[in-house]
Amino acid sequence: MAETPNKDETSHPLEKIFHPRSTALFGVSSNAKGMASGFLTSLLEHKYHERAPLYIINPKVEQISGIKAYGSLLDIPDPVDHVISLVPERVVPALVEQAIAKQVNSVHFYTAGFSETGDPDLMDLEKRLVGQLTESGIRVIGPNCMGLYVPHEGLAFMNGFPAEAGNVAVVSQSGANAGDMIHGLGRRGVRFSKGISFGNGADLKAHHFFDYLANDAETEVVTAYLEGVQEGSYFFDAVKTLAAKKPVILLKGGLTAAGARAAHSHTGSLAGEIKIFDAMCRQAGASRAVTMDDLHDFTVASTTSLKDIKGKGVALVSGGGGFAVLSADAIAMAGLEVPPTPDPTKEKLREFVPVAGTSINNPIDTNPGGDIEIWANTIEVAAESANIDVVFATLPWSSSSTSDNDDSADPDSLESEINDYVDRLSGIQDRTQKPIVMLLRQRGDNRNSSHLFGLAAYKAGIPCFSTVNRAARAAAEILDWRERREGLPALF
Amino acid sequence: MAETPNKDETSHPLEKIFHPRSTALFGVSSNAKGMASGFLTSLLEHKYHERAPLYIINPKVEQISGIKAYGSLLDIPDPVDHVISLVPERVVPALVEQAIAKQVNSVHFYTAGFSETGDPDLMDLEKRLVGQLTESGIRVIGPNCMGLYVPHEGLAFMNGFPAEAGNVAVVSQSGANAGDMIHGLGRRGVRFSKGISFGNGADLKAHHFFDYLANDAETEVVTAYLEGVQEGSYFFDAVKTLAAKKPVILLKGGLTAAGARAAHSHTGSLAGEIKIFDAMCRQAGASRAVTMDDLHDFTVASTTSLKDIKGKGVALVSGGGGFAVLSADAIAMAGLEVPPTPDPTKEKLREFVPVAGTSINNPIDTNPGGDIEIWANTIEVAAESANIDVVFATLPWSSSSTSDNDDSADPDSLESEINDYVDRLSGIQDRTQKPIVMLLRQRGDNRNSSHLFGLAAYKAGIPCFSTVNRAARAAAEILDWRERREGLPALF
Repeated sequence: MAETPNKDETSHPLEKIFHPRSTALFGVSSNAKGMASGFLTSLLEHKYHERAPLYIINPKVEQISGIKAYGSLLDIPDPVDHVISLVPERVVPALVEQAIAKQVNSVHFYTAGFSETGDPDLMDLEKRLVGQLTESGIRVIGPNCMGLYVPHEGLAFMNGFPAEAGNVAVVSQSGANAGDMIHGLGRRGVRFSKGISFGNGADLKAHHFFDYLANDAETEVVTAYLEGVQEGSYFFDAVKTLAAKKPVILLKGGLTAAGARAAHSHTGSLAGEIKIFDAMCRQAGASRAVTMDDLHDFTVASTTSLKDIKGKGVALVSGGGGFAVLSADAIAMAGLEVPPTPDPTKEKLREFVPVAGTSINNPIDTNPGGDIEIWANTIEVAAESANIDVVFATLPWSSSSTSDNDDSADPDSLESEINDYVDRLSGIQDRTQKPIVMLLRQRGDNRNSSHLFGLAAYKAGIPCFSTVNRAARAAAEILDWRERREGLPALF
Repeated sequence: MAETPNKDETSHPLEKIFHPRSTALFGVSSNAKGMASGFLTSLLEHKYHERAPLYIINPKVEQISGIKAYGSLLDIPDPVDHVISLVPERVVPALVEQAIAKQVNSVHFYTAGFSETGDPDLMDLEKRLVGQLTESGIRVIGPNCMGLYVPHEGLAFMNGFPAEAGNVAVVSQSGANAGDMIHGLGRRGVRFSKGISFGNGADLKAHHFFDYLANDAETEVVTAYLEGVQEGSYFFDAVKTLAAKKPVILLKGGLTAAGARAAHSHTGSLAGEIKIFDAMCRQAGASRAVTMDDLHDFTVASTTSLKDIKGKGVALVSGGGGFAVLSADAIAMAGLEVPPTPDPTKEKLREFVPVAGTSINNPIDTNPGGDIEIWANTIEVAAESANIDVVFATLPWSSSSTSDNDDSADPDSLESEINDYVDRLSGIQDRTQKPIVMLLRQRGDNRNSSHLFGLAAYKAGIPCFSTVNRAARAAAEILDWRERREGLPALF
């Protein structure tokens, strides 16, 4: 492929990094073993090589997995945009020299063993090598990171990432956590515009990526895991600018002394840092995730109908008395409410709800058995109630241990049943303009069917959570988030 | 089988209820459909009918599923110990009359529609019918509940309960929650002495069962879900007596106003009830679970090596920098500590740990890859450290996304690999006398292998948790529990 000019001359300076027209893997071992070779298999799995030239630098072989190998970057006849460094740190000086001579656009160092060791000599070395590249106009991702996932381009750093692109950008200092975020959210149906693992951030840091993502039309929500905050005032400005435009969810590791030591990012006293970070998030209008579960749940909440929740009134439509009791407690403890069903709603429910073994007083248990009409009508009538802002519902098949849709179900009939449920929920959301949150209670035997339901539901904008506690926490966070954004542009 | 006298004349008055020498299902429908018929399939699955006579009362049929049906209890020629009432409430008076005439020992009413409706007439009816039975010396479980699970006897009220017996007693007012507890804990390897769902508690209440379980040699730990507290002073005395002898874990539903309404058990102001219940648990030396997850985790903690944790020092042995950072934060936030590795321990680790890409400063990441020797040695050396009271470790196969033992593995080699891991962990626990807590991080593709590992580990006394947050919370609870039991007999 010949080099072509940027399609948009006014594009963001980092734009080209996310759209490399060619990529070289520097240092794949010939036996394709070890972590580093995972980059090659991931790029092949995502078909990068079918969209753009992919090269390998390894002087000892002709090709690996069908990809031609060269002895040096300079041996490649065509231009190279992006270089992924998989070599040990001692080979990095040669790579830097070649990258500069080849005038590449960006280098991503998977290579570790620099500033994160805390060794002053290695910190200096990182500074010097990265400085040589940046002075030549080459941007650097890392070192000590997994780099870029751009599904549109077929760029990926782990196997099993979704091939389909979406609207969520993932930013993570840690490569393993980036993988957890993309795999975990992906299993819940979330799709991604970009994924970025930037490690030590010797050149490009969180604030650079936030600035880029604020202006990236493909990105609607940003969800990030950070360890150290680099260049604090730039960082804060970038978070503020980004959060004014798009929902931002931030999880910071190393907020306790133990975690900070683990992050190798801070030493000494860190007392009060949790409060400082929390205050920064509140001031900027960002959402602070306390745990990785939070990050996942808040991302799901802000990309589904749950983002439009208007108040605290929850209707709980579920089978199982004890489950309903604990759920009501959990909802109340999260700061939401389970208001009694008003009389007009009760009357409407009584029109189609059998009396025996049912409760219509919120929690509502209309004991639908397998009757999807009763189930869907119950949810719709509950959602229409004036004191209700959101419905939390279980699937009939997961609400009782004797009316299961378990994993032994026929795949075709399962798919059609799932579509039926999702269509009805979708219709209820459209008509009532209230979010319907599904609680997918997982037992041993319904994991696959719950998983498939969750994917179909997410696609239709219906949020799913594995526990009522997590659902309630996510709903409360949206309300809190909106409240603290007073004065900022309304995102939802 | 002929009637035989109690093997132990000094046994507890409730003993016979848990060991019925014959049982009659009153009201199984002939088409074996509906919730009620689940009792028959559960008893057959657990082979009750192979150990003791099982009868069905249904005047319209000869037999159902090979079990002979009679028109009335009085038509059964042999004695009947236990009756399970599956009939609608209007048939209950006839059942009561027959049970009294037949001189049965106990009646369990699955039948609902009495005091839990809040209807004064139905409350009176419950009182009258149950009174007729108790005045005739017949004990009553329920109404509105699932009754008894006694694996030793083949008694069970849901399919899929473990056939093997164990040391944990489950007590639950809610049948659905009893099922969640037995199924959920069962999937983690816990086995049960007895399971009791007692619903409205018209005759036998939580305090009766606690009194029995305090004296039950088969029960070592009691874990309970309660809604209303009935006969408060008896209840408190029973909890105190039981908690002095055995670990007791209590989860109370309906602690918020919303939950209480859901429980139909209280109305009006309940402000401060959470505090009162918490204070009661603390005073009695019981453990209070705030969520169902807590109940499961605290039960696992108190039936594995984790019960013997002596202090707050956690060594975290895990792969993945970002995971280690968040884990250290979670451990610190739970009130535990992740103390720096002391120099002598560092020296021992350096003897076998490769330097590159490793960290030995706690969190410890010795990057074992698939090397079980390095992995096990790391855990053992960490456990030996003077400032360490417990090790939290991940499995090498679940700690990184590229060295997985996924569900596509060969079952035989998986089993032998699991046994190898478990044997080594078990040996380390024996030698160091410190609990080793396994964090089984579940992704999409290792659920089955993680599940099988968890079962084998539990059997060897090794506690497993799905997240570090849950592990840390359970460990902290054991320490807190022991502290607040000062003056009570030491259980662990």
